[in-house]
Amino acid sequence: MTIYMGVEDLCRLVEQVGVEPFILGIADRIESDFRRWEEFDKAPRYASHSPDGVIELMPAADRARFSFKYVNGHPKNTKLGLQTVAAFGVLANVDTGYPVLLSEMTLLTALRTAATSALAARYLARRNSRTMAIIGLGAQSEFQAIGFRAMLGIERLQVWDVDPAATAKFRVNLADQGFEIVAAASAPEAVLGADVVTTVTADKAQATILSDNMIGAGIHINAVGGDCPGKTELAPAILSRGTVFVEYPEQTRIEGEIQQMPADFPVTELWRVFVGEAAGRRTADEITIFDSVGFGIEDFSALSYLHELIEGREDLRRLDLIVEPNDPRDLFSLVARRQTVQQQAA
Amino acid sequence: MTIYMGVEDLCRLVEQVGVEPFILGIADRIESDFRRWEEFDKAPRYASHSPDGVIELMPAADRARFSFKYVNGHPKNTKLGLQTVAAFGVLANVDTGYPVLLSEMTLLTALRTAATSALAARYLARRNSRTMAIIGLGAQSEFQAIGFRAMLGIERLQVWDVDPAATAKFRVNLADQGFEIVAAASAPEAVLGADVVTTVTADKAQATILSDNMIGAGIHINAVGGDCPGKTELAPAILSRGTVFVEYPEQTRIEGEIQQMPADFPVTELWRVFVGEAAGRRTADEITIFDSVGFGIEDFSALSYLHELIEGREDLRRLDLIVEPNDPRDLFSLVARRQTVQQQAA
Repeated sequence: MTIYMGVEDLCRLVEQVGVEPFILGIADRIESDFRRWEEFDKAPRYASHSPDGVIELMPAADRARFSFKYVNGHPKNTKLGLQTVAAFGVLANVDTGYPVLLSEMTLLTALRTAATSALAARYLARRNSRTMAIIGLGAQSEFQAIGFRAMLGIERLQVWDVDPAATAKFRVNLADQGFEIVAAASAPEAVLGADVVTTVTADKAQATILSDNMIGAGIHINAVGGDCPGKTELAPAILSRGTVFVEYPEQTRIEGEIQQMPADFPVTELWRVFVGEAAGRRTADEITIFDSVGFGIEDFSALSYLHELIEGREDLRRLDLIVEPNDPRDLFSLVARRQTVQQQAA
Repeated sequence: MTIYMGVEDLCRLVEQVGVEPFILGIADRIESDFRRWEEFDKAPRYASHSPDGVIELMPAADRARFSFKYVNGHPKNTKLGLQTVAAFGVLANVDTGYPVLLSEMTLLTALRTAATSALAARYLARRNSRTMAIIGLGAQSEFQAIGFRAMLGIERLQVWDVDPAATAKFRVNLADQGFEIVAAASAPEAVLGADVVTTVTADKAQATILSDNMIGAGIHINAVGGDCPGKTELAPAILSRGTVFVEYPEQTRIEGEIQQMPADFPVTELWRVFVGEAAGRRTADEITIFDSVGFGIEDFSALSYLHELIEGREDLRRLDLIVEPNDPRDLFSLVARRQTVQQQAA
């Protein structure tokens, strides 16, 4: 039987553990998994594009475990009362191929994205960073704030969203969290004086959320929203001025901000920074950019962390996803034996 | 909420409908989906190989629906009492990206593989075929027999497996089904005089289940077991003598019997035969070979058929795979609101 963590189960668990410890737990796992990067079976995600959005499958595997995430990206969903990004995923054993855990991953993706962003910033942002601008106050914004406080010491949030209702929601949700929150009147105003700028907007368009003149020396940009072909947030000039860090270049060149740049545009792989093979931030004046698109190993890490948290618990839901006949070679009697008995009785 | 068809649910449904009508229903769907081949988003499956086996993700989509199947192939699993091939899959809406159906697919794969095999044989085998040899009496064998009787008129089965227990199981399972079953003493004996030869063995090896001298004029070979790199069943000489039909050449050249042949080895796509663009069997003497590896559209068809069968029923299990917050942009309050209330109460 496969463990099932539905929305209700995961929400309860995250509440019990706490959002911040949960993000820290995933970040710890991502860091150690990225450090053994070369042990993983990696591939760019499979993406099926349609006029309304994209559906993706994101696999990853080491020698013991295989994972994949199903995730969509449909900007118009919000108007229907649905999620722009919804996801679920599976962790499986490599030696048998059997799934051990099926989990909702909409919430888990928000948690792991915040974990990845904050982890990258710990290597790339200035150590004394205290103020973060957040552009785009959708489903991921609060998790980003919590992650950056825990891992970088961010205390002040300068925020902006085109929709005032999103800003109001953000304020209410973080009211008791001890942040100094400043709602800016525009994106440029939000960015003014920030040490870190997080862009996490939803529109599937080549938008210019950040223009070149908004970005001063020493800023770290955490570019989360530009994550599929035709969906970018940064003016190309910013990418030329800064040092760009990526998860998996083969995927990021297709999906990230650097889709706007030539195919040989220089980037640094984040895992090389974690293991010390490549430099992170080199000077206080450098502009660093994490061109985040999300990668399968992060989901692998999140599912592994989740599985470790719950393994052995007796109160979990379980699903009969895989048949368990008495004889593995005998599927037929699962659907025909009783029929035959009925026929004989008739 | 996503409809969940677990093993128990699907077994009950297939019993109610009957194995033969269920296979016919899927075959009908596969035929019509293959006829609109060019409407589909297609890709070779993603395969993650390990020493013990393979885990694959098989996607497919048309303009309205997206599907994928998770499937493993682990020959040693049988010794552990587990399935060599176990699978589950999802059908989703393209316009929202939301999953509508999660189903077990171990049983469903056996049904759709039999449906595809029998459907192909209707175009490729001689019309007067009555005798089929089956080499390999594992989990799929009985479904192949039922499918070929329903769609081709197969009445006599000449069967062979290296394990007598598999043969005994096959006989018991089909005892009341009206076949004439002859257990051969060897694979060559099973093939002798057969109109159709189905090879459906499980070993992950370059095996020679069929050697050149076993195959006479006019035979149709339904080669099911050779379906991943390093796993073949037919002597290459047979492929050179016959006409080879495939599902999706890009995938079959990697995974099918034709992995043994040069990259430009001529093959005919099955869908072109269905729409009349290419010939199926041309003469009574021709050797036809369906080099079947399984393709995502077949799973799409099977899931679509299943969904159509059960849609609107009230007695289905449903899963909370996707969050449903009051405001789609507000995931945070799902995991922090109650915590805050507790803190305030404390």
